Amino acid sequence: MKKISALVLGDVVGQPGCRALFFKLPGLIKKYKADLVVVNGENASDGFGILPEDAEKFFSKGVDVITTGNHIWQKREIYPLMDKENSSIIRPANYPPGVPGSGSVTVNVKGEDVTVLNLLGRVRMGMPVDCPFRHSSDFLKKHNKSKIVIVDFHAEDVMEKESLAWYLDGKVSAVVGTHTHVQTADERILPGGTAYITDIGMTGPKDSVIGTKPEISIERSLTQLPLKVEVADNESVIHGVHLLIDAESGKAVSIDRIVQSETGE
Amino acid sequence: MKKISALVLGDVVGQPGCRALFFKLPGLIKKYKADLVVVNGENASDGFGILPEDAEKFFSKGVDVITTGNHIWQKREIYPLMDKENSSIIRPANYPPGVPGSGSVTVNVKGEDVTVLNLLGRVRMGMPVDCPFRHSSDFLKKHNKSKIVIVDFHAEDVMEKESLAWYLDGKVSAVVGTHTHVQTADERILPGGTAYITDIGMTGPKDSVIGTKPEISIERSLTQLPLKVEVADNESVIHGVHLLIDAESGKAVSIDRIVQSETGE
Amino acid sequence: MKKISALVLGDVVGQPGCRALFFKLPGLIKKYKADLVVVNGENASDGFGILPEDAEKFFSKGVDVITTGNHIWQKREIYPLMDKENSSIIRPANYPPGVPGSGSVTVNVKGEDVTVLNLLGRVRMGMPVDCPFRHSSDFLKKHNKSKIVIVDFHAEDVMEKESLAWYLDGKVSAVVGTHTHVQTADERILPGGTAYITDIGMTGPKDSVIGTKPEISIERSLTQLPLKVEVADNESVIHGVHLLIDAESGKAVSIDRIVQSETGE
Amino acid sequence: MKKISALVLGDVVGQPGCRALFFKLPGLIKKYKADLVVVNGENASDGFGILPEDAEKFFSKGVDVITTGNHIWQKREIYPLMDKENSSIIRPANYPPGVPGSGSVTVNVKGEDVTVLNLLGRVRMGMPVDCPFRHSSDFLKKHNKSKIVIVDFHAEDVMEKESLAWYLDGKVSAVVGTHTHVQTADERILPGGTAYITDIGMTGPKDSVIGTKPEISIERSLTQLPLKVEVADNESVIHGVHLLIDAESGKAVSIDRIVQSETGE
Ligand SMILES: [Fe+2]
Ligand SMILES: [Fe+2]
Ligand SMILES: [Fe+2]
Ligand SMILES: [Fe+2]
Ligand SMILES: [Fe+2]
Ligand SMILES: [Fe+2]
Ligand SMILES: [Fe+2]
Ligand SMILES: [Fe+2]
Repeated sequence: MKKISALVLGDVVGQPGCRALFFKLPGLIKKYKADLVVVNGENASDGFGILPEDAEKFFSKGVDVITTGNHIWQKREIYPLMDKENSSIIRPANYPPGVPGSGSVTVNVKGEDVTVLNLLGRVRMGMPVDCPFRHSSDFLKKHNKSKIVIVDFHAEDVMEKESLAWYLDGKVSAVVGTHTHVQTADERILPGGTAYITDIGMTGPKDSVIGTKPEISIERSLTQLPLKVEVADNESVIHGVHLLIDAESGKAVSIDRIVQSETGE
Repeated sequence: MKKISALVLGDVVGQPGCRALFFKLPGLIKKYKADLVVVNGENASDGFGILPEDAEKFFSKGVDVITTGNHIWQKREIYPLMDKENSSIIRPANYPPGVPGSGSVTVNVKGEDVTVLNLLGRVRMGMPVDCPFRHSSDFLKKHNKSKIVIVDFHAEDVMEKESLAWYLDGKVSAVVGTHTHVQTADERILPGGTAYITDIGMTGPKDSVIGTKPEISIERSLTQLPLKVEVADNESVIHGVHLLIDAESGKAVSIDRIVQSETGE
Repeated sequence: MKKISALVLGDVVGQPGCRALFFKLPGLIKKYKADLVVVNGENASDGFGILPEDAEKFFSKGVDVITTGNHIWQKREIYPLMDKENSSIIRPANYPPGVPGSGSVTVNVKGEDVTVLNLLGRVRMGMPVDCPFRHSSDFLKKHNKSKIVIVDFHAEDVMEKESLAWYLDGKVSAVVGTHTHVQTADERILPGGTAYITDIGMTGPKDSVIGTKPEISIERSLTQLPLKVEVADNESVIHGVHLLIDAESGKAVSIDRIVQSETGE
Repeated sequence: MKKISALVLGDVVGQPGCRALFFKLPGLIKKYKADLVVVNGENASDGFGILPEDAEKFFSKGVDVITTGNHIWQKREIYPLMDKENSSIIRPANYPPGVPGSGSVTVNVKGEDVTVLNLLGRVRMGMPVDCPFRHSSDFLKKHNKSKIVIVDFHAEDVMEKESLAWYLDGKVSAVVGTHTHVQTADERILPGGTAYITDIGMTGPKDSVIGTKPEISIERSLTQLPLKVEVADNESVIHGVHLLIDAESGKAVSIDRIVQSETGE
């Protein structure tokens, strides 16, 4: 059985997140014999968006596809790169027509087409984009020819995330959640063969509040003042999953959580 | 060193959740030599609230304290029990004055006072209760005499949960999140000695959307109709944590995730 | 110039609202020489939805079209009537495909086609339906042949309501807001000829909180308990607007607010 | 009967709003023989907050008290002025302890103490400040000695606004809503003698979306991109109310809406 080995790593937060990723990714690729590396980069540059120079570094270190989320729009310098044909920097596909970039990309992995589809949740997110359920269904029916499809579902609400996973079970290889920045322990393969995890977690400083300085978040909570968050800087941890996918059927063979400290083995 | 061994188990959902809890709790107590069992029961009766007869069964099976959350109010029959002095059924403490019940309870465990404090988050919850940060701080300063304090923080938002944990680090033995129904993989002991996990997960049917039938949730997502959710019924899993707490200092010694299927060992 | 005289009346709340409507509508029709009467009925039956018998009474008293909103789904008995061809009971058009009913209806008024289009807002509503901007634009381009179009935009957020009005200015005869239950004083004709008001207000009891008993709402605010609201019962007031529309151009000639107490002249 | 004549004017938006206010306020004061002028200034400087120089101009043109709202924090330069004793620039009183400024001020008007209290709503606002119901009740019982109290309730949700008005009916002279930027037509005196209006509207450009450029708001709605809003610039309109208050009882005698274009009489 020909298998695709894929790493999917969570939201890289600021300089500490980038540092850990760049330092440890080569080793992870080797360890997992990864054929494909997908990383969510929506918070790579100061926590908000990703600059072209950071994206370039991602690719130079072995990243194949950069997925993103609601924060992608905050660094406009990246828009031209997203607009290039077959750009490997994608944004949620269910944004309305007319926004920069594309919501999916197909890459060749060991002779197989692998499609990465990025989607955005709508519950408790404050951004009523198009329905991720109908969008993904339409995409799979009309636009996709790959047997292997990995979905990065960037969303907040567990009900919405689990519902989409059940909805797409048997139709895609994996539905992998991002956005909350905390890894969940519910990785599994659903009955139809789709790997699922509610959230793969972030890549960023450990002593933090979703990557930012706890003292500012506490002060915000106590005062309700609109204080600016700042990326924390301490030992970073890479969070993500390792997927094994059967190339013939497109079904998931295994999903395992990755937790890799920048200082650890 | 005298240690308190405590089990804290997540939101029990409906009949399937109760069934798994009643069947497996005695074995878990034995396995972990538990001195104290705290279970969140806000979804025990049909998914919304907890009836007196279900609460009684919790206690008869070895539960010491029932914590709850936003759904506690939906079965009014439980209010009188919550209003009894030293009731072991508590509700979030930061509800405004005047609501039924109490927000904390102190129980004697191996000769030590152990206080369980229930708090509710305010971010993305739609219920602006009192500030959980100030409430817990006031509580610890003015009303609490126990060295050992376990907090069930029933909340949605990761930022709020992590912020409260950092805020209370060194002041309580553990901050244990509930409400999302998905167990997170971030259990740890913070530098000040407080055990923390963003969410311990639920006790309920595995093939579900936070305990409810996936097909209804999918239909709701697709149509936006206000369809009534229904508790799913299939193999249930108990999720929670095991805490070891140093009785002298009140600090956490260890925190370990529990995942116990009703059919498994 | 041939003009269409239209009454558009706001959310009828419960029995008190119905009572006022049935008693005063004939007089209002006479007073305004109304050619068309559109009434939002989403709260007609106990505050949640509208039953067939109440809808029938609306029609028997002179209502031509019943528009609705987010609360339409709560009385399922009405679905069959909404599903009839050319039903004069419509629901927001930008619900996803597959829900009962239709989002618009065209009626013949003095030999002219007049289309009433119902739309739902998405900001601060908790229901991510399809985009009302794109939906209305598509509708006007592809499905509508009437020169005269009256839009009931059932929405909460002022930015969204004003934005849609500017977006549709010159393309429809009127954008008339409902849902907040409070009449706004900003009625005007926009530069392109579209009449606009942020909200026409409700038809229901005056001494109330959006039609419901103030004491319950106060108690809810004070305790955050999920108390059930109840329709208040005291003197009701009809709120709405009177539109004059040029039949040839479809442009609005005038928009005037209506405030009619059930006991007043 | 000694009466206090008070003008309360709504959120002044940017340069166009300031321009209209400065030009027309002297005439309005004369017309209404105003003894007191209260103006909400939370959007005075570019739409977000108010700079000291703009506040100074408010006062020099006849404003006695500047109330604010959620946007007050965005220009930090104003904090020192808010922190001065008896500052006439106030912010919502129900922010948590520890934030800059004060939530009320008492001024002497024709020999009478008149207190202006600023409150913030919590429903659909995204900022869980302290309960405005309990806060105002405590304030009136413990801190206030004035018979005449005018409340600027800066809030979004109609239910919350109407509930607070009923809650305070008979205890304050007026509850006057701000924040939505659209004037409502529901001004009245409640049975207990408290004048009420859900929203007095804004002071800013007429051809706008709550004071900002419609084309940007439309584009945001269509794309869900986080485009920056910009204050529109065209003919501005002053919105507010005129209150007559019986100095002896503190009860309202009348409440009338004000709509004053900068070019009109
Ligand atoms: Fe992120
Ligand atoms: Fe995100
Ligand atoms: Fe729960
Ligand atoms: Fe909950
Ligand atoms: Fe309504
Ligand atoms: Fe509504
Ligand atoms: Fe404002
Ligand atoms: Fe505001």
